[in-house]
Amino acid sequence: MKTLNNQIIRPSLLLDKQKCISNIEAMITRAQKANARLRPHFKTHQSVEVGNWFKERGVDCIAVSSVEMAKYFADHGWEDITIAIPINVREIDLINELASKIHLNLVLESRESILYLESELQHSVGIFIKIDVGYHRCGIPSEAIGSIKILTDLMKEAEQLRCKGFLTHNGHNYKAKDQNEIHNNHSKTLLSLNELKDVFRNEIPNIQVSLGDTPACSISKEFYGIDELRPGNFVFYDIMQYVLGSCEENEIAVAMACPVIARNIDRKELVIHGGGIHFSKEFIEADQDGTKLFGSLVRITENGWSEILGGGFLAELSQEHGIIRCSDILFDEFTIGDIIGILPVHSCMTANLMRKYLSTDGTWISTMNSEQQTIDN
Amino acid sequence: MKTLNNQIIRPSLLLDKQKCISNIEAMITRAQKANARLRPHFKTHQSVEVGNWFKERGVDCIAVSSVEMAKYFADHGWEDITIAIPINVREIDLINELASKIHLNLVLESRESILYLESELQHSVGIFIKIDVGYHRCGIPSEAIGSIKILTDLMKEAEQLRCKGFLTHNGHNYKAKDQNEIHNNHSKTLLSLNELKDVFRNEIPNIQVSLGDTPACSISKEFYGIDELRPGNFVFYDIMQYVLGSCEENEIAVAMACPVIARNIDRKELVIHGGGIHFSKEFIEADQDGTKLFGSLVRITENGWSEILGGGFLAELSQEHGIIRCSDILFDEFTIGDIIGILPVHSCMTANLMRKYLSTDGTWISTMNSEQQTIDN
Repeated sequence: MKTLNNQIIRPSLLLDKQKCISNIEAMITRAQKANARLRPHFKTHQSVEVGNWFKERGVDCIAVSSVEMAKYFADHGWEDITIAIPINVREIDLINELASKIHLNLVLESRESILYLESELQHSVGIFIKIDVGYHRCGIPSEAIGSIKILTDLMKEAEQLRCKGFLTHNGHNYKAKDQNEIHNNHSKTLLSLNELKDVFRNEIPNIQVSLGDTPACSISKEFYGIDELRPGNFVFYDIMQYVLGSCEENEIAVAMACPVIARNIDRKELVIHGGGIHFSKEFIEADQDGTKLFGSLVRITENGWSEILGGGFLAELSQEHGIIRCSDILFDEFTIGDIIGILPVHSCMTANLMRKYLSTDGTWISTMNSEQQTIDN
Repeated sequence: MKTLNNQIIRPSLLLDKQKCISNIEAMITRAQKANARLRPHFKTHQSVEVGNWFKERGVDCIAVSSVEMAKYFADHGWEDITIAIPINVREIDLINELASKIHLNLVLESRESILYLESELQHSVGIFIKIDVGYHRCGIPSEAIGSIKILTDLMKEAEQLRCKGFLTHNGHNYKAKDQNEIHNNHSKTLLSLNELKDVFRNEIPNIQVSLGDTPACSISKEFYGIDELRPGNFVFYDIMQYVLGSCEENEIAVAMACPVIARNIDRKELVIHGGGIHFSKEFIEADQDGTKLFGSLVRITENGWSEILGGGFLAELSQEHGIIRCSDILFDEFTIGDIIGILPVHSCMTANLMRKYLSTDGTWISTMNSEQQTIDN
């Protein structure tokens, strides 16, 4: 009989469809309670099939992280897409192609981008100004009213640019110590964005504020003044989110399944086929002495995986090898050729590398990286 | 006129064919001087076209890091391939298919692997026993003669297994402080492997010892008793190897080219489209205070790139964004839509993610990841 376990030949990313769908439904409910539109960020799964699980539940607008990703989902019937990264003006041809077909929103934060788009855009697009409320990756500080006004004024003159409002990403919540820090960040964010909204309410008709980060969207109850939630990682969650307190262990919807290829009895280490080109090299510091955690162990079951196993963790990664440190008991449990499950530290990076999912019902799910050959510039 | 610069639309990995070919020719010469066979590891470039640059110069045997990669190169005419990772016995069907067509070498270190292969292999393969000479990732310690003898004895009874000798990878040289540490590691390695070779000379007819790591193969002059050199990274090199002293700056043959999408004048930061899904999240610690370096900056020229630019570096990566910290002068030099070049910290990981190369002569070079759709298990 073809069990999940004996279907696994090489490193594979398992996807538990039921957990994934309940994550989707939970976030839809949270957005409804917040009286906000849910515009899920599809950079995490990058899959039309997973996208359809949203569509079947009434979601009709999405965010993506590149123009290529927007094209992939537009080609598969999505008609309202926000490219949630400051726009790369060199992609103007593909942007024009998309803008001619779908409702496209772009993000920017500079005069130069507006002037370039104004001269090159052949079709109307929505524009969100990127606002920084503490992450300090990009965006205009929410208190820099003057700088923001320069952009809104400039857009009034730009035929194809409809300024829709403000977009922010609280990436600093991923570095929070605990839920309290996330709640504090989020309260400050709400305050800043509502102040900003009030200032520009008359400048920008039907002003919209879009906020997206999985930690705040997963645990916060208050979204006053927020028109749109834009989380992405929640569809799968991962160990990083579990440690942050954004999710429960049993909400993590993906697990790597890797064959044991060597064992070292002196060091009590299991070597797996599964390295940086499968997991990514993202890690979390497991303790003060700098020990790195690249993933947590689970046992693959007939139709999924177990709770996290104590007494072991994924401790090192090279290109195709992974090293699992474990207790005597755990070490003795796994031999050459066995499959060991590992919950990834950062599911977005792992999913992007793995390029397809083995659903726990035994079917394969493709993504934009497995469906299409890469396109030349 | 179509210059290299205006051909770049989105994050692209540039490949300088001349630098790459001179790296290849230099390593061929070093192997000849060492009186050793060169079996380059193709996991770094994963490209038939780059592989042909070796073939045209007389190289006819290679190493790869997975059974899938072996199939890709076998399908493109390579007939002598070593899969240089402890074999994943679950891939036996593909292994048998390959063993029926080409001269295939496998690596192992356990009784279980031998017993499994003995019962399942339908065609003859060469076997290298993985030896640990200090990296402690996998392999049997070179001094554990008894454990090694158990495997060589077992293989005498196994019809399809021809034990060829020993294979080692000095991964710890990548963590060396300086060239002296690499030389010291390498001397110890030569001593251990030659002792081992003497012990098993009569056990294993025409005993072979294969050693592969780019640092030692790039800077050491002494390879007494080594039959085969198996480096991979040298084909491109990278900032990690440059810092180690394995290569000169002008031997680094790949550079990322990324568009500037935002600028923060207060922090003097340039935001590029180019993140963890392009570079990988590999970094080196730039100094004691834990500052991370994800890449070094260069200026893209008409047919390549400049020397490393002082006053700036790639300091942070998220999924698709990169943050470049720079001096006032460098900051003022780049505006929205400009292309900035970045020499990657670890070219193997970056090349695997980028999946194709833009040759500095303006042509695109594919790899196994861009040519073929992923195959289901």
